[in-house]
Amino acid sequence: MFHKRHPQVGAAPGTLVIPADAPTPRVRQILYSIDGLKSDRTITDLDQLEAAPAAGVSWVDIQGFGDERLLIELGEIYGLHPLLLEDVVNVPQRAKVELHDDNLLIVLRMVRVDENAEITVEQIGVVLGEDYVLTFQECYGDVFDPIRKRITAGHRRFKEKRADYLAYAIADSVIDHYYPALEVIGERLEEMEEEAVMAPTTAILQKIQFMKNRLLNLRRALWPQREALHSMVWETNALVSEEVRLYLRDTYDHCVQTTEVIEMYRDMISGMLNTYLSSMANRTNEVMRVLTIVSTIFIPMSFLAGVYGMNFDDMPILHWKFGYAMFWSLAITLAVGMLVFFGRKGWLRPQETKNQKPD
Amino acid sequence: MFHKRHPQVGAAPGTLVIPADAPTPRVRQILYSIDGLKSDRTITDLDQLEAAPAAGVSWVDIQGFGDERLLIELGEIYGLHPLLLEDVVNVPQRAKVELHDDNLLIVLRMVRVDENAEITVEQIGVVLGEDYVLTFQECYGDVFDPIRKRITAGHRRFKEKRADYLAYAIADSVIDHYYPALEVIGERLEEMEEEAVMAPTTAILQKIQFMKNRLLNLRRALWPQREALHSMVWETNALVSEEVRLYLRDTYDHCVQTTEVIEMYRDMISGMLNTYLSSMANRTNEVMRVLTIVSTIFIPMSFLAGVYGMNFDDMPILHWKFGYAMFWSLAITLAVGMLVFFGRKGWLRPQETKNQKPD
Amino acid sequence: MFHKRHPQVGAAPGTLVIPADAPTPRVRQILYSIDGLKSDRTITDLDQLEAAPAAGVSWVDIQGFGDERLLIELGEIYGLHPLLLEDVVNVPQRAKVELHDDNLLIVLRMVRVDENAEITVEQIGVVLGEDYVLTFQECYGDVFDPIRKRITAGHRRFKEKRADYLAYAIADSVIDHYYPALEVIGERLEEMEEEAVMAPTTAILQKIQFMKNRLLNLRRALWPQREALHSMVWETNALVSEEVRLYLRDTYDHCVQTTEVIEMYRDMISGMLNTYLSSMANRTNEVMRVLTIVSTIFIPMSFLAGVYGMNFDDMPILHWKFGYAMFWSLAITLAVGMLVFFGRKGWLRPQETKNQKPD
Amino acid sequence: MFHKRHPQVGAAPGTLVIPADAPTPRVRQILYSIDGLKSDRTITDLDQLEAAPAAGVSWVDIQGFGDERLLIELGEIYGLHPLLLEDVVNVPQRAKVELHDDNLLIVLRMVRVDENAEITVEQIGVVLGEDYVLTFQECYGDVFDPIRKRITAGHRRFKEKRADYLAYAIADSVIDHYYPALEVIGERLEEMEEEAVMAPTTAILQKIQFMKNRLLNLRRALWPQREALHSMVWETNALVSEEVRLYLRDTYDHCVQTTEVIEMYRDMISGMLNTYLSSMANRTNEVMRVLTIVSTIFIPMSFLAGVYGMNFDDMPILHWKFGYAMFWSLAITLAVGMLVFFGRKGWLRPQETKNQKPD
Amino acid sequence: MFHKRHPQVGAAPGTLVIPADAPTPRVRQILYSIDGLKSDRTITDLDQLEAAPAAGVSWVDIQGFGDERLLIELGEIYGLHPLLLEDVVNVPQRAKVELHDDNLLIVLRMVRVDENAEITVEQIGVVLGEDYVLTFQECYGDVFDPIRKRITAGHRRFKEKRADYLAYAIADSVIDHYYPALEVIGERLEEMEEEAVMAPTTAILQKIQFMKNRLLNLRRALWPQREALHSMVWETNALVSEEVRLYLRDTYDHCVQTTEVIEMYRDMISGMLNTYLSSMANRTNEVMRVLTIVSTIFIPMSFLAGVYGMNFDDMPILHWKFGYAMFWSLAITLAVGMLVFFGRKGWLRPQETKNQKPD
Ligand SMILES: [Mg+2]
Ligand SMILES: [Mg+2]
Ligand SMILES: [Mg+2]
Ligand SMILES: [Mg+2]
Ligand SMILES: [Mg+2]
Ligand SMILES: [Mg+2]
Ligand SMILES: [Mg+2]
Ligand SMILES: [Mg+2]
Ligand SMILES: [Mg+2]
Ligand SMILES: [Mg+2]
Ligand SMILES: [Mg+2]
Ligand SMILES: [Mg+2]
Ligand SMILES: [Mg+2]
Ligand SMILES: [Mg+2]
Ligand SMILES: [Mg+2]
Ligand SMILES: [Mg+2]
Ligand SMILES: [Mg+2]
Ligand SMILES: [Mg+2]
Ligand SMILES: [Mg+2]
Ligand SMILES: [Mg+2]
Ligand SMILES: [Mg+2]
Ligand SMILES: [Mg+2]
Ligand SMILES: [Mg+2]
Ligand SMILES: [Mg+2]
Ligand SMILES: [Mg+2]
Ligand SMILES: [Mg+2]
Ligand SMILES: [Mg+2]
Ligand SMILES: [Mg+2]
Ligand SMILES: [Mg+2]
Ligand SMILES: [Mg+2]
Repeated sequence: MFHKRHPQVGAAPGTLVIPADAPTPRVRQILYSIDGLKSDRTITDLDQLEAAPAAGVSWVDIQGFGDERLLIELGEIYGLHPLLLEDVVNVPQRAKVELHDDNLLIVLRMVRVDENAEITVEQIGVVLGEDYVLTFQECYGDVFDPIRKRITAGHRRFKEKRADYLAYAIADSVIDHYYPALEVIGERLEEMEEEAVMAPTTAILQKIQFMKNRLLNLRRALWPQREALHSMVWETNALVSEEVRLYLRDTYDHCVQTTEVIEMYRDMISGMLNTYLSSMANRTNEVMRVLTIVSTIFIPMSFLAGVYGMNFDDMPILHWKFGYAMFWSLAITLAVGMLVFFGRKGWLRPQETKNQKPD
Repeated sequence: MFHKRHPQVGAAPGTLVIPADAPTPRVRQILYSIDGLKSDRTITDLDQLEAAPAAGVSWVDIQGFGDERLLIELGEIYGLHPLLLEDVVNVPQRAKVELHDDNLLIVLRMVRVDENAEITVEQIGVVLGEDYVLTFQECYGDVFDPIRKRITAGHRRFKEKRADYLAYAIADSVIDHYYPALEVIGERLEEMEEEAVMAPTTAILQKIQFMKNRLLNLRRALWPQREALHSMVWETNALVSEEVRLYLRDTYDHCVQTTEVIEMYRDMISGMLNTYLSSMANRTNEVMRVLTIVSTIFIPMSFLAGVYGMNFDDMPILHWKFGYAMFWSLAITLAVGMLVFFGRKGWLRPQETKNQKPD
Repeated sequence: MFHKRHPQVGAAPGTLVIPADAPTPRVRQILYSIDGLKSDRTITDLDQLEAAPAAGVSWVDIQGFGDERLLIELGEIYGLHPLLLEDVVNVPQRAKVELHDDNLLIVLRMVRVDENAEITVEQIGVVLGEDYVLTFQECYGDVFDPIRKRITAGHRRFKEKRADYLAYAIADSVIDHYYPALEVIGERLEEMEEEAVMAPTTAILQKIQFMKNRLLNLRRALWPQREALHSMVWETNALVSEEVRLYLRDTYDHCVQTTEVIEMYRDMISGMLNTYLSSMANRTNEVMRVLTIVSTIFIPMSFLAGVYGMNFDDMPILHWKFGYAMFWSLAITLAVGMLVFFGRKGWLRPQETKNQKPD
Repeated sequence: MFHKRHPQVGAAPGTLVIPADAPTPRVRQILYSIDGLKSDRTITDLDQLEAAPAAGVSWVDIQGFGDERLLIELGEIYGLHPLLLEDVVNVPQRAKVELHDDNLLIVLRMVRVDENAEITVEQIGVVLGEDYVLTFQECYGDVFDPIRKRITAGHRRFKEKRADYLAYAIADSVIDHYYPALEVIGERLEEMEEEAVMAPTTAILQKIQFMKNRLLNLRRALWPQREALHSMVWETNALVSEEVRLYLRDTYDHCVQTTEVIEMYRDMISGMLNTYLSSMANRTNEVMRVLTIVSTIFIPMSFLAGVYGMNFDDMPILHWKFGYAMFWSLAITLAVGMLVFFGRKGWLRPQETKNQKPD
Repeated sequence: MFHKRHPQVGAAPGTLVIPADAPTPRVRQILYSIDGLKSDRTITDLDQLEAAPAAGVSWVDIQGFGDERLLIELGEIYGLHPLLLEDVVNVPQRAKVELHDDNLLIVLRMVRVDENAEITVEQIGVVLGEDYVLTFQECYGDVFDPIRKRITAGHRRFKEKRADYLAYAIADSVIDHYYPALEVIGERLEEMEEEAVMAPTTAILQKIQFMKNRLLNLRRALWPQREALHSMVWETNALVSEEVRLYLRDTYDHCVQTTEVIEMYRDMISGMLNTYLSSMANRTNEVMRVLTIVSTIFIPMSFLAGVYGMNFDDMPILHWKFGYAMFWSLAITLAVGMLVFFGRKGWLRPQETKNQKPD
């Protein structure tokens, strides 16, 4: 179900909504420039924040929103609009790109597959300024370590490029995470497809519905992201250089590809529903077929037995020497006739296996 | 069903349609400026209306349309176009934003959840002038008290900003009300989902249909609102300042989010219909299965009993010592054979519980 | 079914197609200006047509197309393009607005509800010139009397405004007629919804299909009308003043609202189809349930009776004193066992009434 | 199934594909100008082609593509691009309008209803030059005789207008042919609708599917045509005059109307599928109902008969004077009880006829 | 299932992912100009690559990606952007056209039908420079031999035109390959349609689903290709001349036609699903009909036999001379009555063959 953290109805705009159990913020600042990494440290007081080095970049990462005062102070330091701060703190927010006076807000949805193949979607708020990038994450732990390593290792592109390249690298990393998630889902779908044919139970229907909802959620996360990346690539602004736009176009391509894979999976799910319903109908047919065969063979024979069980005084055959044999021959003739009739209709073999020759 | 209050077919444009039982209008004027609240009082005669203070705002709220003369008089005071007056009085009107010569008409749809989780949609007509805001509501009682409190308390933004900010605050409050409504609906959907699996009755089908219609109504209310807010944010006019547009963009974002949640709920409802239909088919299968098992086990045995109940003179087994025992062993063999056959087909266990291992 | 009055394939453009039984035209001219009504009379010969008064309007209404010569003569008097004349005479034509050299063709679809709630759609051709309006209707009798009364009564707006305002008034009146039609349909839908649950017969299915087709027809009539009104409001031309465009915007709003109500009704119809199909399936279930209960209770008991009706010499129980009593206790045990089994499955109560608690 | 005449994969562009059994081309040239018809003759050698008269038009019609050299020679005479020639010869090609250096290619799809109401779609290639029109048709026999008659009869418009008007007349004639085809289909649909209710057999299902495919094909033929006509009306070029555009707008209107009728028919077809499926389900219900009534009435009675057919020594009632009468009263009571139970459930009347009151 | 070759999450952009079993690259260079073919040879070391002749074209074809160093070196020689190289190597990539500083990347999806009518989709990466074309293919073996032959044979157009014409010829050849694939699929669909009516087994359902997925894959391959070709035709750039755009428009037409055929096939598939489900329901009906006829004929007769098998002392008819004959006449009357009842309902003939008259 949908639960957005939203302030009291009618509250002033920019009101931050921080749950009682929100973790205390962990602030980490990385400074680097064309000369390489300058510093990488955890900040405990915002006074410790340093300005970016000349022609360099300052990356401030905030994890956990459990301190409203700190967030507001940070907003004042970087001149963040109250509505911008609200968007990164009051999750979930639709993925979007929003140009402010001297920064760009990028809201992204990160997807993560845990050990049980459960998929969790988390919001990543990114604020891109001229020489800084701020990242906001609700929970501890992130997925940006490969980026930090590339910075620390002094990758040429990081050193040469500015804050917009760092913002690109973050967005690219977010989109990259959809690929493993899609592969896990793809494997699940293959398992489910088999099950839907072999064992069309209510349990598999519920799995199908559940997967359908999961795909819907992923789709809902991805589509606004796709729009957001599109606007980053095609709408020019002072904060994102032409060169970085080229890189973002690549990320946009990947985003488009992931949405297409999701559409493909959704088609598969709807095919599975058909398979499921058809397997269920097949079962009814099978049950009916057995009932019909057994009933229609024995009911006429039972009638015959009933006839010769009557107590009329004057039933000559009863006293005939071959009466009993005649009864059986009659009964067996009836039964065989029925079987031949069913055989001609093709009802004696189970229907599923009739045409199973491979394609 | 749809019932719009519309004038006689062919009536002149601008004809107000006021039902006989419409409540007498309650008029309340709030005046404030950068110096804070100037006055807040209920007006009984429109002559009591005051002009807005210098660089300030006049907010006139009208609740109840039971006095056509008063409405027309108000229209003359503020120079409202007859068609504008018709739009706010002859409800329901689609949500929209319409620029007139010197004011802007904003038609919104407020949603309210009552104690029984019933959802009611009410129209809010807003007229934004250079230094005034008029609000029109059909019934007594509104949801703008938090805004009044913020004005009375002298919130900085209200004091500094003009009439357009007040209009924004009203629109924002209208959209904010959709969140609690969506949460209530979400809870209902969760309950219904369970019911659709456990008890697929006609009653739950009707609940599903009813909820589907409710969501359709909400969707129909929200989509034009979304378009209206979009035009307020991106179509420039003299009455809405650049700064307030920034605030409206935030409201627009929330409006988009609510429409997306409604689309999600609609997908859930359609999944529930599938679950319901499949549970029904499951039941038919279950009933058929029991009928088939019982019938096909006993029908051959009954035939056998019928045979040995015949009155042929010459049925040697009848007189044989172990005849009766043989009959039973034959009958039991038949029954066990059938049971084994059904067991192999997996028909002896109810199908629903066969694969219930959690995902 | 679709039947358009169309000329021979390959005929020259502008060929009028007039059925043999078309009524003789009735021509009526109304002249008015800022000084009020000048004349209102029925014309028997087109030579009697007068020019519009200075700063005034001439409204010529033609009902019945049974005189090709008269129509062509009228076309020559007002300089109508042959294709324009074809469009108003060869009905049905899609609703549209088409700018010609010195006039504007407006094709509209009027809807009327007769005494049996049957809906008929009729084409209204309107030609707007600088100082004249021509209206073309296939059959006698129209719905413009309220407009004539407003003109005759000397309504201020009619006197002050020009031919474009008259054309607006006609279009507005056409759209106004959809509201009563929609209300009649809405009431029918409510009746049908109840029937679909209570009595899911083929008859109700046919009613549903019939209503679905009726809504499709209305939709097909309304959508091009909506586009046509949209173009009248937003595409500027010399014949429609800015002020009248404001009025047309209101008519456009109503047209949008009616299309939305039709979409809502279409959703309801599709919900009804679901209800109908589900009620049918419910009936099958109910019939199956009764069959299964009765069969599975009596079939084992019958077998037992069959056993004790066998004629084996050596069936000790038959001669036992309590044999008969034992048979009954066995039979009743079997039946009760079955009933308990069915009771546990919840099959003993009809399924429809199991969860009927109101929502 | 789809079969396009296409060259070898990888062949050079402009390769003509002419089947072995293609008919020998028949070439006919008509020359006319403001002075009327100049000549109308069949050409056997392309050297016989004459130039258009001053301010006049040359119409060359080619039927049959059985001579590649002639086609290529014609292309050289009129300076046709190889790709243009490929488009008119390698059928089918999507309907389209394509501007070349000094001519305009118009590809159209003509529809024809034969004596068995079978619909065939044929491609008409039209090349419009400054003073000539070329028409290409795969088979002998065309539908342009009414146009030829209008030219021969010296219709005013043909004489006054240029080659673009002839191209319009051809396109208009193509669209005109859809009306009779749609009427034939409409009548078929009405017959099928009745059948779907009265006799829901697999045969009618196949008719429905077949008609659905036919409509899909018509739709696929019409939509690109609609786009092509749209571009001819609204995209200006040197070859089509403003006046002829006005005529083409009328043809476009008719094309839109035919696509709308097809959409309407498609909706009817989908309604028929519902009717069919529901009639099938109704049949199952009916069969089940009869089975259930007969079985549940006789099974308990049979049990009773079985009881009194048992051979217990001690069954007092058997020897009672009124035993047999009592058996029958018991049996009849049981049967009547069942009938009353079924009557209350409304199962004794067939369901289809229960609510057949006309709407 | 979807499997993209993608680098480690968070890897630097431009990282090539080369599987361990990738084949060693085969590089082949063709040089030609207006003077004809200059050379055509297999390159083993990139140092052997020659520059294009004056006013000529250099075509370098790479098959197999098993040497990362070679690919990077090639990229350096031709100044390829790292992201471009990634797109052609890390397959699959959506079809697209992307303008870089001095080359144009074209990603295409080639379709091939193998001997078993299995369809495989392969990526073709094309880089168009001012005087060169690079083609990248993952596996050995390609489909460009007809193009090579046309170059070798010194086709006029190849000699006169530049590198852009070669790129067009490659794209055209890719699209041409869809026609035979579509014809193979069309034949399969015809076979399946028949099967779905005659033998509605689970096997045919699985074939339908499988074909549906195959069509979805083709559709997913074609749509981005269509967009890519559209942009090549309509978005001007320095690398593609006006004349070649004309040729590309033809290829675009074919691409549109193939997407339309796929949409048609998709509609056929969904019709087949309906046929299948209806055939299944028909079977259930058929089984039910036989069960009902046999049961309801014999159950009343069995009851009668049961009655005369009772052991009441006082059953006069049993001792009557014509008792037995009377029993039979009664039983036969009952059976005939039932048969007449079923005959009237039309249940005695199988439903499928009732209305099989051809359309
Ligand atoms: Mg979304
Ligand atoms: Mg989202
Ligand atoms: Mg891509
Ligand atoms: Mg990608
Ligand atoms: Mg997509
Ligand atoms: Mg409205
Ligand atoms: Mg709507
Ligand atoms: Mg609404
Ligand atoms: Mg709407
Ligand atoms: Mg949002
Ligand atoms: Mg929001
Ligand atoms: Mg949405
Ligand atoms: Mg969405
Ligand atoms: Mg039309
Ligand atoms: Mg329409
Ligand atoms: Mg229409
Ligand atoms: Mg309206
Ligand atoms: Mg609508
Ligand atoms: Mg098409
Ligand atoms: Mg086509
Ligand atoms: Mg038309
Ligand atoms: Mg249409
Ligand atoms: Mg339509
Ligand atoms: Mg795609
Ligand atoms: Mg797609
Ligand atoms: Mg693709
Ligand atoms: Mg084409
Ligand atoms: Mg093509
Ligand atoms: Mg298409
Ligand atoms: Mg569908």
